[in-house]
Amino acid sequence: MGDYELLSKIKSPADVKRLDEKDLAKLCSEIREKLIETVSLNGGHLSPNLGVVELTVALHRTFNLPKDSIVWDVGHQSYTHKLLTGRFDDFYTLRQKGGISGFPKRSESKYDDFNTGHSSTSISAAYGIARAKMLSGDQSHTVAVIGDGSFTGGLAFEAMNNAGRFKKNFIVILNDNKMSISKNVGAFPRYLTTVRIQPWYIRVKKNTEKVLSKIPLFGRPISAFLRRSKSKIKNLVYKNTLFDCFGFTYIGPIDGHDIPELENALSAAKKINSPVLLHVVTKKGKGYLPAEENPGTFHGIGKFDIDSGEPISSHKGFSAEFGNTLCELAEKDKKICAITAAMAKGTGLEKFSIYHKERFFDVGIAEEHAVTFACGLASKGMRPVFAVYSTFLQRSYDQIIHDAAMSGLHIVLAIDRAGIVGDDGETHQGVFDVSMLNSIPNVTIFSPTYFDGLKCALNSAIYVCNNVAAVRYPRGGELYKPDDFGEESITYDIYGNKDCGKLIITYGRLFSYACKAKEMLAEKGIEVCILKLCKIKPIDPSAFDFATEFNTVWFFEEGIKTGSVARNFGDALLARQFNGCYHIKTIGDKFVKQMSVSEALHMLKLDAEGMADVVLEDLDRIGNR
Amino acid sequence: MGDYELLSKIKSPADVKRLDEKDLAKLCSEIREKLIETVSLNGGHLSPNLGVVELTVALHRTFNLPKDSIVWDVGHQSYTHKLLTGRFDDFYTLRQKGGISGFPKRSESKYDDFNTGHSSTSISAAYGIARAKMLSGDQSHTVAVIGDGSFTGGLAFEAMNNAGRFKKNFIVILNDNKMSISKNVGAFPRYLTTVRIQPWYIRVKKNTEKVLSKIPLFGRPISAFLRRSKSKIKNLVYKNTLFDCFGFTYIGPIDGHDIPELENALSAAKKINSPVLLHVVTKKGKGYLPAEENPGTFHGIGKFDIDSGEPISSHKGFSAEFGNTLCELAEKDKKICAITAAMAKGTGLEKFSIYHKERFFDVGIAEEHAVTFACGLASKGMRPVFAVYSTFLQRSYDQIIHDAAMSGLHIVLAIDRAGIVGDDGETHQGVFDVSMLNSIPNVTIFSPTYFDGLKCALNSAIYVCNNVAAVRYPRGGELYKPDDFGEESITYDIYGNKDCGKLIITYGRLFSYACKAKEMLAEKGIEVCILKLCKIKPIDPSAFDFATEFNTVWFFEEGIKTGSVARNFGDALLARQFNGCYHIKTIGDKFVKQMSVSEALHMLKLDAEGMADVVLEDLDRIGNR
Repeated sequence: MGDYELLSKIKSPADVKRLDEKDLAKLCSEIREKLIETVSLNGGHLSPNLGVVELTVALHRTFNLPKDSIVWDVGHQSYTHKLLTGRFDDFYTLRQKGGISGFPKRSESKYDDFNTGHSSTSISAAYGIARAKMLSGDQSHTVAVIGDGSFTGGLAFEAMNNAGRFKKNFIVILNDNKMSISKNVGAFPRYLTTVRIQPWYIRVKKNTEKVLSKIPLFGRPISAFLRRSKSKIKNLVYKNTLFDCFGFTYIGPIDGHDIPELENALSAAKKINSPVLLHVVTKKGKGYLPAEENPGTFHGIGKFDIDSGEPISSHKGFSAEFGNTLCELAEKDKKICAITAAMAKGTGLEKFSIYHKERFFDVGIAEEHAVTFACGLASKGMRPVFAVYSTFLQRSYDQIIHDAAMSGLHIVLAIDRAGIVGDDGETHQGVFDVSMLNSIPNVTIFSPTYFDGLKCALNSAIYVCNNVAAVRYPRGGELYKPDDFGEESITYDIYGNKDCGKLIITYGRLFSYACKAKEMLAEKGIEVCILKLCKIKPIDPSAFDFATEFNTVWFFEEGIKTGSVARNFGDALLARQFNGCYHIKTIGDKFVKQMSVSEALHMLKLDAEGMADVVLEDLDRIGNR
Repeated sequence: MGDYELLSKIKSPADVKRLDEKDLAKLCSEIREKLIETVSLNGGHLSPNLGVVELTVALHRTFNLPKDSIVWDVGHQSYTHKLLTGRFDDFYTLRQKGGISGFPKRSESKYDDFNTGHSSTSISAAYGIARAKMLSGDQSHTVAVIGDGSFTGGLAFEAMNNAGRFKKNFIVILNDNKMSISKNVGAFPRYLTTVRIQPWYIRVKKNTEKVLSKIPLFGRPISAFLRRSKSKIKNLVYKNTLFDCFGFTYIGPIDGHDIPELENALSAAKKINSPVLLHVVTKKGKGYLPAEENPGTFHGIGKFDIDSGEPISSHKGFSAEFGNTLCELAEKDKKICAITAAMAKGTGLEKFSIYHKERFFDVGIAEEHAVTFACGLASKGMRPVFAVYSTFLQRSYDQIIHDAAMSGLHIVLAIDRAGIVGDDGETHQGVFDVSMLNSIPNVTIFSPTYFDGLKCALNSAIYVCNNVAAVRYPRGGELYKPDDFGEESITYDIYGNKDCGKLIITYGRLFSYACKAKEMLAEKGIEVCILKLCKIKPIDPSAFDFATEFNTVWFFEEGIKTGSVARNFGDALLARQFNGCYHIKTIGDKFVKQMSVSEALHMLKLDAEGMADVVLEDLDRIGNR
């Protein structure tokens, strides 16, 4: 571990400004060392942060935070910014409970201007900040830093359209690393390649000069005319990058690892009294060979060994099971298509993308489009499966309602990272998808507990359902399964003594905790039965009937309370004149902060201990123990 | 009314093809007459349809539906398409219960390829259709028709990015009428102006020819060199519209009212083996003077007088009340900003846009951006109010969760057209916003019944709340208010005898119906009390306590059941060991089809008669009458 001679003395951006230019290389190298060290211990986003070290240093040397504002798109590249803004000493707590967040947080520092986590929000937010400053006569600068991957999100274009006619300085930095999380896809990234390789100004210069230079000069008037024409043609083409079409002055491409060049470009950008797009080319993973070679693997990563770059723990999880199952199904069924929004690796679709290339669609970071595109495929008889993290599916709410469910189109949503996700913190929790989908007519939702349940549910979603069908599963792998629990049914399972009068209802991975709670309670002489749901919408009515046979019923659910399955279940019990006690334990009406999954479930009383406690407390209260 | 000599004989697109070119002008004129006649009687979208008469005729003459596919963005311009595809005879039922929909519907006709209603979905859907065709070896064509307004929605850009690298023919028709619903805003529309006025090919031609032509020729070699250079410069600039950047071949601009020119261009577009953008310039409202002069007014309109163009009925509604109130508040408070997504007129913000121009932001059809932009404004101390129709707010779900509520930013959502909206049909119902917002932590929701309640709620949302605050109100104006009902409270009101044992709970405009139901029940000797909520999230706990004093409680709600206020209320009653009867009547778990508001509320048993029926039936069942 380094001694961080320079970095440890940086207490605020003013200290970065005071550094001698000759010391900057050493500072950057210390920052990289700190990044690699911390992420290897805590997990986190490595490649995006390694790529923007110089850019961040240059930003802090050129702008005056917190007077000037920087909005970091997604925010997974803000670690260097955190190290340079007074958070070096606490940086070892990165992504831990109560520690430094892996994303910008206004509550964490006055240098964090806007909370991010999801993609493509930065230009919108920064433009709002810039307009607010204008209204209050504040002359300071506002900068959005956005990756080429995030730029494929429609929100970024909505913001460009809105901001393009602004009459003040407003800077968007396109951090072009040729990647979103994996290799960037689509027409826009390809366009950037042409800009990168043959920047307009060079291309134009070459072409016009080639054309014009070879014309022999024969007298002053024509020479002058040519000079004028030359500049006309130059202007014509100069003003014609995609960004110019949106009203942004294009500057670039700039080498994103050359601090003096960056400082020059940033200073130039500051002086332009209208929106500017500064195109900065960086290398994702820069400075750490394993990350340079596999930027996708090191995009977001768990703990790893610094020397080898190998992850310290790794287990086959639901994502892999899903990917393999879909790949097998697609072997026999040529109508199955797989869609991802720039998450082929994370959602387990890499194998599918190789074996069924023609039916694999990485649409870029574009969850809205992914769903509507799937609807188009479905309207012509394909069987599209959109694999997406729960938290990002929030982007598709209107498309699921309007394009899919209302039209009666059959699409499948494979919802990964459903439930608490851990260290990425509150922006990434998958706790809204059930409330969201529960409120949409014509939607079926499965939430299996084990791999075999996942396979059955996926099969059912593809071949039995004929409208929107969702299969949701948590991050990671299978948890505890009692020896005497058989095969998982896709409707519901009953585990325990049906006549014991006490029933725990749950679904998904919480069933594993419920089984342990059952054992803990048995040790105290209390017998409970468990009703494990798999199809959570619609629920098989016989499950309601079954539950009414009990005196006391608990529903434990890893999701928001409003719109929960627990509420729907309670409603059905009411309609059946159930007159026992019905207790709901969900996440309630709050966001879940950054902490590990087990810490969060413990805090929410949704782990085995928590469930047992809740049962005991309730029994004590109602005097039924 | 015309006799529709030609139009009445068109039973399918084949008949359009058979028409002599010389008869097309007469056909178009008959179509326009039919459009004006029908919309004047039924209400509907007029200007968008008048603008695309020739384009639609040309499309049906060039393509072979239903083999080829057309996806109409938004779909409010599909009336001519309907008239030409066997729906002329039924067209008088437009927007009526059980009649022809104002939008494309797969269930209505084999010529409707994709259901639309919300903006910016067409390229995504059409690209999905095109890919499905490719996978199944279908060589037919797929066309998306999208307005310049819809193009400002990010979803359209997500689709362009994804489709731009397609290796087959795929046609996007940009129907450029310089308008979204009102005047189109932002950088993209301004860019189109430059393309329109000075199309590249003309500009380049002029410039290069001017430069190159004046160079005197002195010998063959140089002349040949110049020819080569000339075409190089031309290519350089040709390939450089915004659409080319996305990989689309640009053709245009084409006069959208010249059928032969359109047919030529469409035929040319069909032959290109890659994505094509055909830029068609049309006049919104074309052929009906009042609509040409006021295309915004005639965009979507109620019944009107054909000769004068004057609306037949018009009343000051909630939109106007909201707009005026906000305008007054903004007079005294320079921090109030108003945001609309291309709906200044519909949301009542026109006055604000004039009086507080610098704080009025029309961001284009871009609901995602609108919310995140509002968050940016709020993060610097402004008080942004985003006025939006309930159905379109669905687009902002993730931004409300992630950018606003989770960050604790104070933004105000003014939700217009909340509840059933009537003739626009199922795509436009405002029945999801409560479920959606109810599930998000840190959100306050007001749903007033009368104008005074709206004013108080808005004031409270702006000055008392400090996180996301929503005020929702229906389309149209105030309904029935009993003489003995006083001023509306922003928490809740009690109306009737507190000791009668029977309680109806409701909120928003349903209170008016509940009051009438109360009177109807009184006539039958049944006394009920009404608890009228205004703040529906969080509900004041004393309202729960109040309700527990009754034996029988009904909750009537104009929204989806899952995530409803009724459910939340029921939960609170359960927690208070309420042991009376609790009956919920909501929309349930289904979409509400096209019919008038009163027809829909009647069908759902949410009007006065329906409520009284429900109460009587329940009392009969439980033997408590």
